[in-house]
Amino acid sequence: MNPTDHIDQALWITEENGIHIRIIDQRFLPFERVVVDLNTSSDVIRAIRDMKVRGAPLIGVAAALGIYLACREEPGSDRHLDDVLKKIKGTRPTAVNLFYALDKQMNRVLKEKDPEIRTETALRVATELMEQEIGACQAIGTWGCALIEQISRERSGQPVRILTHCNAGWLATIKFGTALAPVYLAHEKGIPLHVWVDETRPRNQGARLTAWELDRAGIACSIITDNAGGHLMQNGKVDLVLTGSDRTARNGDSANKIGTYLKALAASDNRIPFYMAVPSSTIDWNMESGTAIPVEERTEDEVHYMNGMTRHGTIESIRITPEGSRASNYGFDITPARLITGLITEKGICQASEAGLKGMFPEKFMNHD
Amino acid sequence: MNPTDHIDQALWITEENGIHIRIIDQRFLPFERVVVDLNTSSDVIRAIRDMKVRGAPLIGVAAALGIYLACREEPGSDRHLDDVLKKIKGTRPTAVNLFYALDKQMNRVLKEKDPEIRTETALRVATELMEQEIGACQAIGTWGCALIEQISRERSGQPVRILTHCNAGWLATIKFGTALAPVYLAHEKGIPLHVWVDETRPRNQGARLTAWELDRAGIACSIITDNAGGHLMQNGKVDLVLTGSDRTARNGDSANKIGTYLKALAASDNRIPFYMAVPSSTIDWNMESGTAIPVEERTEDEVHYMNGMTRHGTIESIRITPEGSRASNYGFDITPARLITGLITEKGICQASEAGLKGMFPEKFMNHD
Repeated sequence: MNPTDHIDQALWITEENGIHIRIIDQRFLPFERVVVDLNTSSDVIRAIRDMKVRGAPLIGVAAALGIYLACREEPGSDRHLDDVLKKIKGTRPTAVNLFYALDKQMNRVLKEKDPEIRTETALRVATELMEQEIGACQAIGTWGCALIEQISRERSGQPVRILTHCNAGWLATIKFGTALAPVYLAHEKGIPLHVWVDETRPRNQGARLTAWELDRAGIACSIITDNAGGHLMQNGKVDLVLTGSDRTARNGDSANKIGTYLKALAASDNRIPFYMAVPSSTIDWNMESGTAIPVEERTEDEVHYMNGMTRHGTIESIRITPEGSRASNYGFDITPARLITGLITEKGICQASEAGLKGMFPEKFMNHD
Repeated sequence: MNPTDHIDQALWITEENGIHIRIIDQRFLPFERVVVDLNTSSDVIRAIRDMKVRGAPLIGVAAALGIYLACREEPGSDRHLDDVLKKIKGTRPTAVNLFYALDKQMNRVLKEKDPEIRTETALRVATELMEQEIGACQAIGTWGCALIEQISRERSGQPVRILTHCNAGWLATIKFGTALAPVYLAHEKGIPLHVWVDETRPRNQGARLTAWELDRAGIACSIITDNAGGHLMQNGKVDLVLTGSDRTARNGDSANKIGTYLKALAASDNRIPFYMAVPSSTIDWNMESGTAIPVEERTEDEVHYMNGMTRHGTIESIRITPEGSRASNYGFDITPARLITGLITEKGICQASEAGLKGMFPEKFMNHD
């Protein structure tokens, strides 16, 4: 499971001299590709909290691997396991994948009393989750690509202009991506594309990560400020808006990176299709609507400081706001279902509504009816 | 006309050993307050083009002073005057104030054939324009403050939470500001306020200039990323959106800093009043609607590079996007009149519509009826 060069992996497991969990520390991209090992559950907790790994599907898998490491480092200790579980749950509140993965992991792990079997089970469950996420992304790629192909036909082969916000590529999802999986597949099929990459302040996941992913795949793209998408849409320069989601409620309301709601409003105002790529691990089946989704508030320093490359080739952090000024920093916003044209899931594309999701995942609604 | 310390001036004229035009070079704020003289028409052209001065009313006045300097440096030369006029017109296309001021200036100046009288006239016209802008801002302050007072009463004295985009303070307008004039006045009257300051990528006029203006005036404010306003509005944390305009058409459509349209959409979606502060010098009486307003496209380097203060106290420019990546950089977008609750002009507040503007400025519509 070593990464290939073209579509890389954000996290992988190597088995040379024991099991090693390896990640790309995304804080240094695109300036440096730093690979680090997560050797302990504390490493995992820090990696998620400090956003060495980010993206809803990826932090779900990382969380499950954190439980595996907890089992491995103190075999048979329920207390340690519980402690690590609480700490991982406390890292980031919005993406439901984290809680989904932990629930799935704990359900299986707690059934095993033998320490060795428990540890083996934890690794197996985490690996299954990883494979599941990769498979879901691949399926989303196929469904979403059909959508892009249709637009390409409508445009008689002129480039399909896709606007995306934040990073929902392989860096966010182990492999392929959610929103970017259809883009990669369409590009492989030779469909002409141009991607508008929202910078995505304050952490610039678009400018740093999505642009980097697309550039290395040879997909035409332009970075734009988060302010620019409305103007592009008003002027007929966007054919499709495609984003990921961090948590989709039963009614289709979806939390995603702050600013997504503004793009959904602009898409709606200009009658441009707005789709979210949502693996089922990102759907919170217990949440009735988006209003209950907790929105993470992060340190204001993310607004005050910016990292980048100096002309001397060193990475430097600079302050971009007045000394002593204050900032607020909300990480996500909720896009109401009414603004979402459709959800691209691993099972197919459905309406962003309870009826739409029920048609796609009837088994998830059995207990609630 | 030297600036006072509290509400400063962005440009002023001193008369020690001749006439000197002095500006704050806004590119260095908030890190350094650099004052430079504009001694030649070329200085003015560069100052506008490189955004040492920016903001619609300010560049209008600077343009008029550029014509004065052209008269002074080659007295009686129609050719030089024409050359400078063309060059100033070519600096920045969106704000109509530039063209308004140049028209007004040229109409008066060309009537004077005597070189000395022409130069004196040019200075007088520019000074009148400056006084007119300052007066308009003061009046806008009074009308807009009444609006804030009303909201303050409705909120029983709880802080009025105002969201603003870009910088429409004294730095943009010689003195007082357009959108910020009501804020300054309300603060002076003791009305509790909290201003959400949109960072305003790519040139960060909000984070760099508006936050700096408000901080030094002691007005509570928080810098937010351009992505955050929608979330704040969805969650009842904004009472009023207040921005400037760079060009308002006869029907009320208004060009303002890129991203304004997105905030207007969010305000409309959440039924929050959205006002634009528009002196009559910013109204393009000859333009039927916003679709014809030219939108400036600027160098992509503004997206790739960011200026700020290193921990060593030096100002450094860093690259924040992948080496070799491409960017697009539109400077403005058009907010349709339907999304604007009202225009705050120096004559009063009116609907953003031809009827609204006609009621306020009947004389401007005489020729067209």
